[in-house]
Amino acid sequence: MKKYQVVGIGNALVDVLWECPDAFLAEHSIEKGIMQLTDLASGAQLYDQIGAAKEISGGSAANTIAGIAHLGGRTAYVGKVKDDQLGAIFAHDLRAQGADYDTPLASKDHEAETGRCIVLVTPDGERSMNTYLGVTEFLSPSDIDEGQMAEAEWIYLEGYRFDGAESHAAFEKAIAACKGAGGKVSLTLSDPFCVDRHRDAFRQMIRDHVDLLFCNRAEMLSMYQTDSFEGALSEAASEVEIVACTDSENGAHVLNGAGRWHAPAMPVQIVDATGAGDLFAGAFLWGLTNDHDLEACGRMGCIAAAEVISHIGARSEADLKQVFADKGLI
Amino acid sequence: MKKYQVVGIGNALVDVLWECPDAFLAEHSIEKGIMQLTDLASGAQLYDQIGAAKEISGGSAANTIAGIAHLGGRTAYVGKVKDDQLGAIFAHDLRAQGADYDTPLASKDHEAETGRCIVLVTPDGERSMNTYLGVTEFLSPSDIDEGQMAEAEWIYLEGYRFDGAESHAAFEKAIAACKGAGGKVSLTLSDPFCVDRHRDAFRQMIRDHVDLLFCNRAEMLSMYQTDSFEGALSEAASEVEIVACTDSENGAHVLNGAGRWHAPAMPVQIVDATGAGDLFAGAFLWGLTNDHDLEACGRMGCIAAAEVISHIGARSEADLKQVFADKGLI
Repeated sequence: MKKYQVVGIGNALVDVLWECPDAFLAEHSIEKGIMQLTDLASGAQLYDQIGAAKEISGGSAANTIAGIAHLGGRTAYVGKVKDDQLGAIFAHDLRAQGADYDTPLASKDHEAETGRCIVLVTPDGERSMNTYLGVTEFLSPSDIDEGQMAEAEWIYLEGYRFDGAESHAAFEKAIAACKGAGGKVSLTLSDPFCVDRHRDAFRQMIRDHVDLLFCNRAEMLSMYQTDSFEGALSEAASEVEIVACTDSENGAHVLNGAGRWHAPAMPVQIVDATGAGDLFAGAFLWGLTNDHDLEACGRMGCIAAAEVISHIGARSEADLKQVFADKGLI
Repeated sequence: MKKYQVVGIGNALVDVLWECPDAFLAEHSIEKGIMQLTDLASGAQLYDQIGAAKEISGGSAANTIAGIAHLGGRTAYVGKVKDDQLGAIFAHDLRAQGADYDTPLASKDHEAETGRCIVLVTPDGERSMNTYLGVTEFLSPSDIDEGQMAEAEWIYLEGYRFDGAESHAAFEKAIAACKGAGGKVSLTLSDPFCVDRHRDAFRQMIRDHVDLLFCNRAEMLSMYQTDSFEGALSEAASEVEIVACTDSENGAHVLNGAGRWHAPAMPVQIVDATGAGDLFAGAFLWGLTNDHDLEACGRMGCIAAAEVISHIGARSEADLKQVFADKGLI
């Protein structure tokens, strides 16, 4: 048995959550529902204008890994924070959840700080994100421990991490070490605009290395530059072993060479949509690495996504394993 | 009209909230419902043992001032943070709520950090607090702007701030400046063990300077070293102009030389008791400085307390003014 079911690599961020009126987005020309990158100064300027906030550890792949750890899975995370207070908070929360986390810290004299994401949560529960990457942008191949990657049944790569000079090389190193030891590779497309920025690199990685592709409808359409969701799903399914595509209130579609399954979305009052896709992937990977069938994995993903959007913050709070048991999934 | 209705002085802290099982308190010999002081090392040791947390600006008097600002009151806060990330979070959240906050920052090379309070919230909603004061302990007379105190209709002094070498002198300076300009002094006893540590100093300040005393039942009994709640209430009422004493699910008792009123507690599902007393005081002072009678002030206090304990975090989230209007109070 490998030491880890899943090792995730992504942007290590602390979320700064503010429940904001819709008018604020319009006044600040912020597009609803997407992630926008910013520098420290612009991020600080936006921060000056938002209301009293809550700080909760986030980061897309980190949310996924925290979810797997929350379910009792054997897991680790790779992402860079600084030796500062927000870095300490990020590391604490991930380890407290049960994940291994040993990425070398950026030193106190690094000019950037630990990354953070201002998450504007509108009354409809939608989240619009403004990310200062900080030191997490500087994740490099030297931060990848090949021994750890070889100990992973699956690695999970965050699409957002395609924004970064050395991150493609870091991903390549991780993929080679994992696959060389018989492991498999999953990737999340993260965001339609992120797909836009890196379409060719994504496409090549999908074709060459990816065994399991996570995405949502908008990312899928952006990836394959089409208006046909079915066409894009088929194209993706021809390129990877498994496709798991979420579709908001329509649930999720799971495809492999042998078939296709649909998992319904759980009815839920959306408080904060942050983390829905992340927890879908976490529960899906937990199910997969515990030998559940793809339909069950999809259903677990939809349950975990529903839980995380029912409260503020992008990490699981309820006992998901109990809910899986109540639904007869485990 | 004075510039400020209320200026508060207290311990500037960021809360680190963790919803914890009762067993955790027993295992770590933590007494439920009170505040325990700690140094950085012991605080860090406890932090290592708690689960994934949320960081939300706190500090008792700061919560009170944030509540007054939230209600639209003219208010300012004095309390020390460092030029670090948690300090920036604390300052942002208070200013974003509409309070003035200009206390000089402790510099980056100060050996202590911005203070924080690990708040353990058990399933019954009770909170047990473990506080690393950090730089907030070093609030000194030089941090008190006499001009600002003279511009306050009321100053609000946090009993917790009696823990600190120079804080008594800081309080004296603030009181002299405020009273010299015709302002009044309110004080909260903060915690029964804090009262124990500083009973004589509290007693002398109450007799010499305090016009309005905030406390809860346990603090009142500790202050007057008696088992007779009624006896303690009478004794307090003989020493100050107004007594406002909260009594958990029994609501609050308000006394002055002319009479006594009772405000009922609002029925509420307690999620996190942190901030109940703070928000009671905030709404009470807002009412008082807007010329509402003492009975109405007590009722506003109970409504604000009920709101803040209905969610995680010690700052108001709902529109309290609307609730006051719905109840016919304004």
